[in-house]
Amino acid sequence: MSDPTSSWAAADAQRSSGEAAPTPRSEKVYLEGPGGIRVPARKVMLSGRSEPLYLYDTSGPCTEDVRRGLPALRDGWIQARGDVEWIEPGYRGPELERIPGPMRRRRVLRGTRTITQRWYARQGIITPEMEFVALRESVDPEMVRDEVARGRAIIPANPNHPESEPMIIGRKFLVKVNANIGNSVVSSSIHEEVEKLQWAVRWGADTVMDLSTGADIHATREWILRNSPVPVGTVPIYEALEKAGGKPEELTFEQFMETLLQQAQQGVDYMTIHAGLRLQHIPLTTGRVTGIVSRGGSILAKWCLAHHKENFLYTHFREICEELCRYDVAVSLGDGLRPGCLADANDEAQFAELETLGQLARIAAEYDVQVMIEGPGHVPLDMIRENVEREIAACGDAPFYTLGPVVTDIAPGYDHITSAIGAALIGWQGAAMLCYVTPKEHLGLPNKEDVKEGMIAYKIAAHAADVAKGHPGARAWDDAMSAARFEFRWDDQFHLALDPERARQYHDETLPGPAGRLAHFCSMCGPHFCSMKITQEVRRFAESRGLDPREALADGLKQKAAQFRAEGGHLYRPVDSASGQDSG
Amino acid sequence: MSDPTSSWAAADAQRSSGEAAPTPRSEKVYLEGPGGIRVPARKVMLSGRSEPLYLYDTSGPCTEDVRRGLPALRDGWIQARGDVEWIEPGYRGPELERIPGPMRRRRVLRGTRTITQRWYARQGIITPEMEFVALRESVDPEMVRDEVARGRAIIPANPNHPESEPMIIGRKFLVKVNANIGNSVVSSSIHEEVEKLQWAVRWGADTVMDLSTGADIHATREWILRNSPVPVGTVPIYEALEKAGGKPEELTFEQFMETLLQQAQQGVDYMTIHAGLRLQHIPLTTGRVTGIVSRGGSILAKWCLAHHKENFLYTHFREICEELCRYDVAVSLGDGLRPGCLADANDEAQFAELETLGQLARIAAEYDVQVMIEGPGHVPLDMIRENVEREIAACGDAPFYTLGPVVTDIAPGYDHITSAIGAALIGWQGAAMLCYVTPKEHLGLPNKEDVKEGMIAYKIAAHAADVAKGHPGARAWDDAMSAARFEFRWDDQFHLALDPERARQYHDETLPGPAGRLAHFCSMCGPHFCSMKITQEVRRFAESRGLDPREALADGLKQKAAQFRAEGGHLYRPVDSASGQDSG
Repeated sequence: MSDPTSSWAAADAQRSSGEAAPTPRSEKVYLEGPGGIRVPARKVMLSGRSEPLYLYDTSGPCTEDVRRGLPALRDGWIQARGDVEWIEPGYRGPELERIPGPMRRRRVLRGTRTITQRWYARQGIITPEMEFVALRESVDPEMVRDEVARGRAIIPANPNHPESEPMIIGRKFLVKVNANIGNSVVSSSIHEEVEKLQWAVRWGADTVMDLSTGADIHATREWILRNSPVPVGTVPIYEALEKAGGKPEELTFEQFMETLLQQAQQGVDYMTIHAGLRLQHIPLTTGRVTGIVSRGGSILAKWCLAHHKENFLYTHFREICEELCRYDVAVSLGDGLRPGCLADANDEAQFAELETLGQLARIAAEYDVQVMIEGPGHVPLDMIRENVEREIAACGDAPFYTLGPVVTDIAPGYDHITSAIGAALIGWQGAAMLCYVTPKEHLGLPNKEDVKEGMIAYKIAAHAADVAKGHPGARAWDDAMSAARFEFRWDDQFHLALDPERARQYHDETLPGPAGRLAHFCSMCGPHFCSMKITQEVRRFAESRGLDPREALADGLKQKAAQFRAEGGHLYRPVDSASGQDSG
Repeated sequence: MSDPTSSWAAADAQRSSGEAAPTPRSEKVYLEGPGGIRVPARKVMLSGRSEPLYLYDTSGPCTEDVRRGLPALRDGWIQARGDVEWIEPGYRGPELERIPGPMRRRRVLRGTRTITQRWYARQGIITPEMEFVALRESVDPEMVRDEVARGRAIIPANPNHPESEPMIIGRKFLVKVNANIGNSVVSSSIHEEVEKLQWAVRWGADTVMDLSTGADIHATREWILRNSPVPVGTVPIYEALEKAGGKPEELTFEQFMETLLQQAQQGVDYMTIHAGLRLQHIPLTTGRVTGIVSRGGSILAKWCLAHHKENFLYTHFREICEELCRYDVAVSLGDGLRPGCLADANDEAQFAELETLGQLARIAAEYDVQVMIEGPGHVPLDMIRENVEREIAACGDAPFYTLGPVVTDIAPGYDHITSAIGAALIGWQGAAMLCYVTPKEHLGLPNKEDVKEGMIAYKIAAHAADVAKGHPGARAWDDAMSAARFEFRWDDQFHLALDPERARQYHDETLPGPAGRLAHFCSMCGPHFCSMKITQEVRRFAESRGLDPREALADGLKQKAAQFRAEGGHLYRPVDSASGQDSG
C-alpha cells in the first residue's frame, strides 16, 4: 500500500479544481443558537421573489488539510462538564507511524463516571449537543432531552471525536442515512477511504461506518475520525478477528475488549455489537436458504459452535456497557441473524434474536448507554411492517437502524434501488436510520461513484419517509421545487435538486445553452404540448377578462358548474342544448 | 429528418454484433398450450443440479428485418372468429411514403359487431388470447375469462395488431410495466423510436405507449406497431392537436374521431382518452401549486375554457365507445387532473375527476369496451393507499394504471428511483400496470440508456409487488438467486440477474478473471469475513461429526438449547458454570 500521506497532493488539486466545491447558488450558513452554538445549514438562493431555502447540511467545515483533521467543535462543551480525564491510549502498535503528527493524539479522554447524553438527559440537563440538534431539526430542546432520556433517540457523541457536529437518531426526528465505507483485504487504501468519507458527507451521509477489515485498520480509522464531521460507527469484532489471525474460534473476550477500548479512545461514536446472537438461536438458521449473512453474526456463530458455549458478547454484556458509558459510545445491537434473502425474512431465528436485543437494550439502559437496534436486510414489502412493530414491542422504542431492506433479490447491480424501496417504507413506518446500500452490494466494494449513487437513493428514501411522517418543514423542499417547475425557473430547479449537476446535464442534453434555461417548456413535450405552459395560459386567459387568476377563475367557472348541477349534471346530456351539437 | 429506411443498416450491424442477443445462458423457449398456442418464456440454465428457471418473456420473436415487421401471430385466431371485415383505411396522407412496402397495409380489419375480449368473455367464450395469457401467467383460463368478463382485467388486442403476444392487465395477475416512447418536436427520429421499442421490450416492457408529437407521427406509429410484440397505446388527442395546428381551442370532435379511427385501423391496442376532465372540475385546480400537468388534460382544459363548454370527449363518450368496440381498442381513462407535485396530491380536483372516470367506466362496460383507469403521478407515501381504495370504489375494480407515483419532488435526474418507490407500493396495493419513469423525467426526452434504467427500476418495482402480493411462482426467481448466492455460483447469479451484464461487470471490477468467478467469497468482505463461507463451514462442521448438516445440527444444538432453558435461560447467567469464566 502506498504511503497515505504522500497521496494527498492529488486530492488537494482535485479539491481546488472545484469538485468538492459547494453546489451552485448554495452557501453554507450557520444558524445561531444559545451559548454560541452554530448549526450548519445549506442556504439555496432562488431567483425572483422566492425566499431562500435552508437545508440540513452534513458536509462539515471545509477541510484545509486532511493531515490535520477538522477543528474540535465540541472540545469546550466536553471540558466544561468537568467529568472527563486524560488517559494514555491503549494502542501502541506500528500503525501510529501511518498517522501524521498533527493528527496523532498522545492522550485521550475517558469519563470519570458515566458521561452519556442519555445520562445527562435523565438528570434533566440539556447539553449543548441537545441544543445543537434541536436547532438543527427545528424542534424544542426539551423534546430532544426527553426523547434521549427515554431511550427513544440517541445522540452519538464520543468525547474523543470532538470534530463531529451533533446529530440525533430517533423516530420523531428526520430519518438519517448511514454510509458504509472501509477497505477490505482485497481492495482500497487509506486515501480512498478518506475520500469516500468526504464524498459521503457531501451527499448527505448523517453517519459513516468504517467497516475496514484489511491492512492499516487502526490508522485508516484515525484518518477517518479526525476528518469526519459526522459520527463514526464500527464493528469492533472485525478488528478483533484480525488480532485472532482471522480465525473466529480463536477469538477471546479480552481481545474484543482491548479492541473496543482502543476504538473508543480513538473516538468511535457507536459500535455494532452482535451480543444478541445466542447459541440456542443457531439451530433456528439451519433450514435457511442463505444461513447467516451478517459477517459479525457468522463469526460469533462459528465461535459458539467451536466452543459449544454461549456468545461471549452476550455473557459479558454488562462489562461492555461499563466501558461504553465512560466514552459515550452508543451501542448498535447487531442483528447477526438478519435474513439474507426474501425466503428467510421474518423467520424464527430473526425474531428470537430480536427478543434478545430487547433484553440487552434494557441492560444497556441500566448503564445509561445509548442504544439502537439493527434490522434487516432482505424483506418483501408486505413483511416490512411486522419488523417495525416487533422492534418497538421488543426493544422499548429504541431507535431502529435498518439495512435497506431490499425487497427483491433479482437485481444485483441495482440493489441501491431494490433497497431504497424498502428503506422508504420502513423509514415511514418508524425506522430512525437507514444504512445505505450501493449498486455494488452483493458484488463488490463500492467506489466513489457507487457511494454517491447509494447516498442519493437513500436521501430520496429518507426524505420520502420524512414527508410521509409529516416531519415539520420536510415538504418545503418539495414545494420549492414544484413552484420552480411550474414557473419554468430551470436554474432554480437545478439548484434545488439533490444532484444539481446531473439535473442540469440531463436538461441540457436536449435543450442546451442559456436559451434552453429560459425556455417555457422542456424537450419532453415541446412548446405546443407543455401542460404547465398551457395551464399558465389558462390562468392568463382568466386574468385578461379582469379576473384574479385563481379565485375569480374559480368564481366564473363555479357559476358554470352551478348551471351544470342545476341541469342535473347527468352524464351525456349536452351542456348547452341551445347550441345544438357540441362544436368540438 | 433522415430517411428512416436508410438508417437500418447501422441497426442491423449493431444487432449482429450481439447487442440485442439473448442474455447469456438463456434461451427463448415456447410453452405449448391447447390449439397450438405457443407462449414465449426465457429459460435460464443454471449450473450443477439446479433446475432451469423459466421467466416471463416480453422480447418477442427475433426481428429479421424491421422493414417487414414481425409475424402476424394472431391472424388465424382473429379470422377464425368470423366477425371482422376488411375495409379501406381512413389515412391517405403523405406519410404513407415513409412506410416501407412490405409493411404498408392496403386494407384493415373492423368488427362487424362488438369484437372485444370482454364481449367474448361475457359470452362465456375462452379465446385463444385468454388461453395464451393463462399459460403465460400459470393460471386457469376460466379465471382469466371471468376477470375479463367482470372488467377487472383487460387483454388489449386490436385485430389490426396481430403481431402482439397477448398479455393481461389486472389486479390478480403479474404487475405490468409500460414504457413510454415517442418523439417530440425537438427531438428524435423514427429509427430511434423503433430502437427504443426493441430496447424496452428487451428489458421487459409489457406494453409501450407511443407519445409522439413531432413529425412523421403516423409513419412512426406504423413502424412501431409492425415491430411491436407487445400492445401499443397512444394518446390520440396529441395527433388531433397537430391537425388543429397546435391550438387546443381549434380542436373539433370530428378531428379527434378521425384520428382515433386512423389509429385504431393501424392497430393501436389501447388509447388514453381524457374524457373525465369536466368543465366544472377546472376551478378546483386554480389553487394548485402546479395546476394541470397532464398534457391531454391541459389541452382539454384550454378547449373547455375557450368555448365555455363541456369537454367534448365527455359529451361524446358513447360515440367513442361505439367505435372502440369494433376494433377492440381498450380505453385507458386518462387522469387529466392528476397531481403534478406532492402538494397537489389527493386533492378535490383529482378525486372529482376519478368519480367521473368511474361513470365513464360504467358506460364503456355497456359497450363491452375494455377499460383501465389512469392514476397519479406525484403522491407522498402515506397518501398512496387512498388512491387505490378510491379507484376501486369509484371504478368498480377496473384495472388501475399509474404513473409512478414519485414520492418526493427533490430529485430530478433520479425520478426513476423516486417513482419506483411509489410504484412498488401502489403495485402491491393493487395497481395492475405501472407506467415507467426514466431518469430524464421532468428534464428531457429519454435516450436508449434512460429507457433501460427506467425499465430496470420498474421491473424491480413490479416484481417486488408481485412477491408482496404472493403471486404464485413470483418468488421462485428470488429463491433461485439466493441459492446461487449462498453456494457461490457466481455465473448463475449473473445469469439470473435482471441485468446480467452489469452484475458481472460490477463483480469483475474487484475480482476479475475466471478465478474471481470461482471465488468462495467476494471483494466486499474478502475471504476471512465472508459470512456465507463461514456459515457453510458451520454446516460442514456439523457434518464432520456425522450429523446431517441441517437437521442434526439443529438436533445437537437443541439439546444444548434445552439445557439453557432448563437453567432458566436468564440473561447474564454463565452457560456452563462448571467451566468458570467464559474462555472467550
